[in-house]
Amino acid sequence: MDRVPILKIGDILLVSIQVDMSDQTAVQLQEDLAERIVATGSHGVIIDITALDIVDSFVGRMLSTIASISKVLDAETVVVGMRPAVAITLVELGLSLNGIRTALNVERGMELVAAARADEHDLEELDDEADAETTASP
Amino acid sequence: MDRVPILKIGDILLVSIQVDMSDQTAVQLQEDLAERIVATGSHGVIIDITALDIVDSFVGRMLSTIASISKVLDAETVVVGMRPAVAITLVELGLSLNGIRTALNVERGMELVAAARADEHDLEELDDEADAETTASP
Repeated sequence: MDRVPILKIGDILLVSIQVDMSDQTAVQLQEDLAERIVATGSHGVIIDITALDIVDSFVGRMLSTIASISKVLDAETVVVGMRPAVAITLVELGLSLNGIRTALNVERGMELVAAARADEHDLEELDDEADAETTASP
Repeated sequence: MDRVPILKIGDILLVSIQVDMSDQTAVQLQEDLAERIVATGSHGVIIDITALDIVDSFVGRMLSTIASISKVLDAETVVVGMRPAVAITLVELGLSLNGIRTALNVERGMELVAAARADEHDLEELDDEADAETTASP
């Protein structure tokens, strides 16, 4: 039981972390996630940490790494379900979870992914228009 | 870390079982689920068992109990992500998971819940029509 299951829901991959992460479990999760993002063409990864009583620097770094890998594979990462006590400890430890978006719960996380995708889409359209204008101009 | 987190996604509650269930964890999960169904008015419970290498009679009974409780609270229960080896062991052990619907993955589980709700809705409408006819007749 040392693999964290990855659930696909529509365009999104959902991971619920409930066990203490060992080095091996963390690396396995990163590999599994990268593979699933590519295999499914998902654009969002939601990581639920409701069950975690504490997020130490190891878990924090793992979350950052997952977010970076996902970013490279064109997927947004949102961490959801953080307990108030965990947030307080994170700040006290000076861990800032760089590059990680957070949301209160899975539903808001999904909205955040959708919104981020929409923004990106708008930007791409603007780029396309700009390209078109550049091409059109003599 | 002896509580299994319950995630709300739209009309559905999602539970991903990843830890070995003790008596206490199982009872806690049943209570938490019953409370969340009532609090959120959810109509479906999806239990993901991808992470389980084995489903013994204890876990089987827990799943049946959860399904029965949900049924009373007007929610469908679907168990998803069962491994082939688990299915084989279940049959060999003579456990039949009475009253439990299963689906291959979360997405199909959601479809199953939606379909079950639609069927029920149709039946209710038929009842209403029948009632209306009965009332209309002299």
